[in-house]
Amino acid sequence: MSGGELPAEFALIARHFRPLAGPGALDLADDAAVLALPPGRELVVAADAMVEGVHFLPDDPPGLVGKKLLRVNLSDLAAMGAAPLGYLMTVAVPRQTPDTWFAAFAAGLAEDQARYGISLLGGDTTSTPGPTTLSLTILGTVAAGGAIRRAGARPGHSVWVTGTIGDAALGLAVLQGRLDDPTGFLAARYRLPEPRLGLALGRTQSSLPGVTRQSRDARVEPGHNGIEPDSGQPKSTLAEIVAACIDISDGFVQDLGHLCRAGGVGAEISGDAVPLSEAARAAGADWLVTCLTGGDDYELLLAVPPEREAALAHAARAAGVPVTRIGRFVAGEPKVVARDADGAPLHLPAGGWSHF
Amino acid sequence: MSGGELPAEFALIARHFRPLAGPGALDLADDAAVLALPPGRELVVAADAMVEGVHFLPDDPPGLVGKKLLRVNLSDLAAMGAAPLGYLMTVAVPRQTPDTWFAAFAAGLAEDQARYGISLLGGDTTSTPGPTTLSLTILGTVAAGGAIRRAGARPGHSVWVTGTIGDAALGLAVLQGRLDDPTGFLAARYRLPEPRLGLALGRTQSSLPGVTRQSRDARVEPGHNGIEPDSGQPKSTLAEIVAACIDISDGFVQDLGHLCRAGGVGAEISGDAVPLSEAARAAGADWLVTCLTGGDDYELLLAVPPEREAALAHAARAAGVPVTRIGRFVAGEPKVVARDADGAPLHLPAGGWSHF
Repeated sequence: MSGGELPAEFALIARHFRPLAGPGALDLADDAAVLALPPGRELVVAADAMVEGVHFLPDDPPGLVGKKLLRVNLSDLAAMGAAPLGYLMTVAVPRQTPDTWFAAFAAGLAEDQARYGISLLGGDTTSTPGPTTLSLTILGTVAAGGAIRRAGARPGHSVWVTGTIGDAALGLAVLQGRLDDPTGFLAARYRLPEPRLGLALGRTQSSLPGVTRQSRDARVEPGHNGIEPDSGQPKSTLAEIVAACIDISDGFVQDLGHLCRAGGVGAEISGDAVPLSEAARAAGADWLVTCLTGGDDYELLLAVPPEREAALAHAARAAGVPVTRIGRFVAGEPKVVARDADGAPLHLPAGGWSHF
Repeated sequence: MSGGELPAEFALIARHFRPLAGPGALDLADDAAVLALPPGRELVVAADAMVEGVHFLPDDPPGLVGKKLLRVNLSDLAAMGAAPLGYLMTVAVPRQTPDTWFAAFAAGLAEDQARYGISLLGGDTTSTPGPTTLSLTILGTVAAGGAIRRAGARPGHSVWVTGTIGDAALGLAVLQGRLDDPTGFLAARYRLPEPRLGLALGRTQSSLPGVTRQSRDARVEPGHNGIEPDSGQPKSTLAEIVAACIDISDGFVQDLGHLCRAGGVGAEISGDAVPLSEAARAAGADWLVTCLTGGDDYELLLAVPPEREAALAHAARAAGVPVTRIGRFVAGEPKVVARDADGAPLHLPAGGWSHF
């Protein structure tokens, strides 16, 4: 005789995760979620995992861990020009994980669900004898045929980047006690990336659900780099402007290398043009290579045909997302060359972060 | 200067996982996969995680671990009556994991991809200081409005189950050295579940890609339980036959309890009618409670209106999946009562497996 009492696992899911469930999730009480795509849209899907001690630190606040897990996946949707739809998540945690951890983790997710207009569709909660290990699959949609791909950069296109580069890598150094961070800006950039969905979707920043003010790191103003100011033309989605896009997760140099290989082109970068935050500049020149090769930026790298640079500037201004032109794609080997103000090549170590 | 050499992580993905990628996966070389749903179909999505030492054993063959990861998720699709479309997977493994582990793991997945007609759409590979932790998100489709739900059981419906119950729980005992298994049948049932997709989709068994013979555990013949033999009527999908369905992952009693709670009904089970394999019967009566409450069966529990029992028998015969009627749903409290041949209640511990 049984069925009256539910074991602790189900009570935990009901308490913390069911409130995150949205349309199609069937209250997380069925074997799967069911949802229809809007007519004329294609599905865009990506998955990323985060392991305690590898992707986040044991004393990172659980709410920020939840947000980062969601945002690194939303950044992949932004890079494809896709609008978010919902997510599935598996959570493996030690048995002794306190209820307060789940409460704070779920509260962070709830805040970002409201911010980005999405909800939880399903998943799995399990124990592990190892570190907390999180996996999230994001679902989004694009207009049929309208996804932005990596493989579109051509010689003559310019290289653009959103936001500032290297803050997250420096933030990790801060949290590891290797660098000072008087304002807390660098640590915040490590812990909480800002997926560039507003720019990707051609929305004004305030039209993203829950977004009411400029992000803290919007220090580099659009238009400062020789491009035309707001011309009053209609806003475009990123897919209508750029020829290729990738989000920077493994490191600026490595991910630019991915764009080069995918497009069969090289890239020439002006090291001085790469946008650094005030805090990163304050860290000093010794940290420049860390900025250019460290991971976790979750900014977008863009290949932009010359005739569409004004449209990019307009869209960036409307979205409240800073963009900077930093170099150009060239014919030749698919490699990245960075030069200083005198034209001399900077020596950057190959590659970025690898797990093996 | 960089971009020429790819770090080991990318080489590993290219070597082992790219060959698994299918249409829409963009060779796993973009930020996300893009795919269109067939017209008139809705998306069905589920995710499950598996942790070494919790869901599989350190010396389980990697190919079987890969197959089990895929199949526990396919079982969720079967329970919803959904046809599989593809999957995303995140893999967290210790740094010293040998290349042969990846090769064997991917080979197992490749075999099952061919068997079930699906492919890899995306994912993430990372290191962990803990045990190997795998997460898989399965995507499938159903006709719009055609998903089978848990919440359809009504008083007077009969309780049916596919296959045999408890083999996997006994198989775990075998692998832990607590039980003998002369034929290896029980350990095989633990390591390699058989998602009941053929029955779910109204297909003959041989029409599933790669399926050419009866599964080893098809010992219980359809029609042995007083139901009509094959009447020659057209095959139906499970969604056209059953009122509710769940797959048995947490244990027979607990998952039947889920069907009861979702439908607001009780269930009365004849303990003697619950189908046990020859190997489970040979283990003896002391193991009966383990069979009824242990997890990992991945059989389907069905609520069947009386007038559709013949259609179920027909569909089961066509699919080569044994089905057995074991009791009925009744009005009253949402609890499970099992009785022996004399009508006396069997005393079953409440609940099944919980991680917390």
